[in-house]
Amino acid sequence: MGPPFHITMLFILSLLSLLSDPVFLTPIQNDAVFHYINDQQNEYIQRLKNWVAIESDSSDPSKRDQVNQMMEITKDYILNIGGEVEMAKIGEQEYSPGVKLPLPPVILAQIGNDKDKPTVCFYGHMDVQPAKKDDGWKTEPYTLQETNGNLFGRGTSDDKGQVLALLHAVESVKKFGLPVNVKLVIEGMEEVGSQGLEKLVEDKKDTFFSDVDYIVVTDTPWLSTKPGITYGARGNCYFMLEVEGAKRDLHSGGFGGTVYEAMSDLIYLLGQLVDVKGKILIPGVYDDVVPLTEQEKELYKNLEFSLDDMQADTGVKQLLHDTKAKILMHRWRYPSLSIHGIEGAFSGSGTKTVIPAKVIAKFSIRQVPNMNPSLIEKQVTDYLENKFSERNSPNKMKVSMVIGAQPWIADMNGPLYVAARNAVTKVFNTDADMIRAGGTIPIAKRFEEILGKPVMLLGIGGSDDAPHGQNEKISKYNYIEGTKLYASFLQEIPLV
Amino acid sequence: MGPPFHITMLFILSLLSLLSDPVFLTPIQNDAVFHYINDQQNEYIQRLKNWVAIESDSSDPSKRDQVNQMMEITKDYILNIGGEVEMAKIGEQEYSPGVKLPLPPVILAQIGNDKDKPTVCFYGHMDVQPAKKDDGWKTEPYTLQETNGNLFGRGTSDDKGQVLALLHAVESVKKFGLPVNVKLVIEGMEEVGSQGLEKLVEDKKDTFFSDVDYIVVTDTPWLSTKPGITYGARGNCYFMLEVEGAKRDLHSGGFGGTVYEAMSDLIYLLGQLVDVKGKILIPGVYDDVVPLTEQEKELYKNLEFSLDDMQADTGVKQLLHDTKAKILMHRWRYPSLSIHGIEGAFSGSGTKTVIPAKVIAKFSIRQVPNMNPSLIEKQVTDYLENKFSERNSPNKMKVSMVIGAQPWIADMNGPLYVAARNAVTKVFNTDADMIRAGGTIPIAKRFEEILGKPVMLLGIGGSDDAPHGQNEKISKYNYIEGTKLYASFLQEIPLV
Repeated sequence: MGPPFHITMLFILSLLSLLSDPVFLTPIQNDAVFHYINDQQNEYIQRLKNWVAIESDSSDPSKRDQVNQMMEITKDYILNIGGEVEMAKIGEQEYSPGVKLPLPPVILAQIGNDKDKPTVCFYGHMDVQPAKKDDGWKTEPYTLQETNGNLFGRGTSDDKGQVLALLHAVESVKKFGLPVNVKLVIEGMEEVGSQGLEKLVEDKKDTFFSDVDYIVVTDTPWLSTKPGITYGARGNCYFMLEVEGAKRDLHSGGFGGTVYEAMSDLIYLLGQLVDVKGKILIPGVYDDVVPLTEQEKELYKNLEFSLDDMQADTGVKQLLHDTKAKILMHRWRYPSLSIHGIEGAFSGSGTKTVIPAKVIAKFSIRQVPNMNPSLIEKQVTDYLENKFSERNSPNKMKVSMVIGAQPWIADMNGPLYVAARNAVTKVFNTDADMIRAGGTIPIAKRFEEILGKPVMLLGIGGSDDAPHGQNEKISKYNYIEGTKLYASFLQEIPLV
Repeated sequence: MGPPFHITMLFILSLLSLLSDPVFLTPIQNDAVFHYINDQQNEYIQRLKNWVAIESDSSDPSKRDQVNQMMEITKDYILNIGGEVEMAKIGEQEYSPGVKLPLPPVILAQIGNDKDKPTVCFYGHMDVQPAKKDDGWKTEPYTLQETNGNLFGRGTSDDKGQVLALLHAVESVKKFGLPVNVKLVIEGMEEVGSQGLEKLVEDKKDTFFSDVDYIVVTDTPWLSTKPGITYGARGNCYFMLEVEGAKRDLHSGGFGGTVYEAMSDLIYLLGQLVDVKGKILIPGVYDDVVPLTEQEKELYKNLEFSLDDMQADTGVKQLLHDTKAKILMHRWRYPSLSIHGIEGAFSGSGTKTVIPAKVIAKFSIRQVPNMNPSLIEKQVTDYLENKFSERNSPNKMKVSMVIGAQPWIADMNGPLYVAARNAVTKVFNTDADMIRAGGTIPIAKRFEEILGKPVMLLGIGGSDDAPHGQNEKISKYNYIEGTKLYASFLQEIPLV
């Protein structure tokens, strides 16, 4: 008895791949590619470990070098799998008044350039959210740790793991002949609002992006253990609310009772934003929310989602709403407001008897179609300025919206979505959940608007990956089977 | 012409001090001691620099070793100037449930033991408030920096500089013969509530403290550039208010609008504590405040205090009250409530889209005679529990009072105060301001209660030293002239 069929195929295809141009086979055997992917698992995990180790936190200006280093490493890997790469400069960031930092370059890459094949452009990002062991991580956040089938570490799910799965898929399919041209847009500022990216897409509309047929964003989780395809995302209006009372911190013994305390004003203002049930109290905020139709309501019926799992995963005692549909609607199609924290006040453990001089609260509104960030900015600013003026405090107050990312929604019945659904069926033997993201993929809407091409979010994150929290992870299953999903999708695209 | 008189005196007295027992001269020439002090200035500053360099932050358990190291260095210096020292063990601190840390030992020291002389016991502390350059310090907080006649660094004023001035004064007067017995109680936990000290004083009441006639606390600032003597201090009830919503931090995209956010509950509760004018909203809190008498009102008329200077020093746009008397009454004789900050929320710069899982607010009430910490604890806890229960949030809420230090007030006409006033007049050629501390000297009231002896606060801090804020300093003038004040006071005590 000879070797099994797939090994034989792999051998033949490997030989073919040694030719200078990859041989184009239609349709490629998913099986052969999948076996190749299985064989590379350990290497894939090791590469993810190396990439997680780089603290590419884009919110912290002192880590900007590591974001840049991350972009270089990504470039090197793309070159290594046969891509062409341009490191596009996108200017500077005004981090605080007068303080400018160069923005990390954006990777524009291309693998394959055959006019007879469709061109799919994938988007991902290499920056991560802040993470410190002290925040409550069980492991060092920048040291990938494999435990019980999960790979823990900052960026494993959002978004290094997802981008790597895609790159590994491209490399795997390429071994047997890529049936599509692949383009890549990989940035380093997603977690802080993708500054500079929009302008780059506009500038390159008629050059790099001119032949792009489809855009796929690889930065999103599934809703459950069932694979999900995402056709919408909420936006994000991120605010800084600053109150300044004194020029230096004061001792509460010596000054308590004699000065207007900045913290007291700030707490008052924050208390006006949202009620206990999460209802936003700012007038006009709900005016432009798209009304719910009966047709849309239907969509929520077949989704696989467990409120019990959500409670177990988060540890919350009670959810804000009591049905699956209501919870998902409030995650996807209604706005929310969260207060993230306060900069400048005492935040350590222990006791400190300080009256903080200047405090800056951070809060954000996740907005939905058809809410407009500029209008939200005006509504929030007017509201807080009125409240503060009514309060009659002599302290200085300032509101600013530092991120204004738009919400996005796509036509879920276009060919791009059909290809992805077919790929899901082939890899997982099930229908895909058609879902939305509660979080923000700022570039999704802008890609659609600027390039006029269909956009889809095809991610491989798990529903419990905790992408912005402590103990972020991706399961080994999602990481490896997700690689196969991308590999299968690359083969489905020419067929639709 | 021979050398000036004071140099001759100094020479003669220095020779006399070489005899095995110091020669007892009554009254000692202030002048000779003062000149000796002037000659030692650089050494005094260098020693303060060395002591400031030790990060003896008692609120941070990871720095406990440095608090202990500070106590050892203080012991060594007291031994060096001829004192006897006992390092009194005071047990353990339960830092958090189940986590115990040994408390730093308390120094009990004695210099001189002559039954015919009065015995003055001085109290000070070697621990400091937290400090990081990032908090907004212009210099490294633990590196003493001399600029324009000021000595900047954490602990320069509160309280290392004041204790060192006293020790230098003792050493200087001792050179010429100490007319009193000096006892010293120096602890390392003042900034977090002097845990263990009260019990030690009780335990040693009939031994170490049995012959003490007077107690002087060296941990207080003046009201202006004029020297002040302090006869009262506010207390401190320090609260931790914790709200827990989830078992891990959540992403505001994925969870905003679907969970009861802990921050939202906490902000609501904090908003119920105090109004814009600093009025505490907790029912019953003002019930036990001693009513203001006409006689007490008179005291406020002659104090040197400038509202303009206070505004310039703090940079506040407007003070809470419009007269000197009202401001000082609200600093000294009325309670106040300050919100210090929140632990567990996002406190960095930049943007983070997190829903914090568990947040702990820190606030404190500076209470005055005759408010009782146990009653305050009950009033605050009942009030917040009611407010939280009305709110109907499923999250977990917990209030705890972690410091409950009593207020204190003394008879300002006793002999201890007369001696101090005479010393002020001799060193500074002016009457002393008779003042109170807005802050807390927890041990003052307990010394008085346990030992039944008069207590006085004779400090040398400047009114603008920022003892718990950024850029803490002591002026070189206060440090050196303050050393002379203690030296003079040591000579005045036997005369009253």
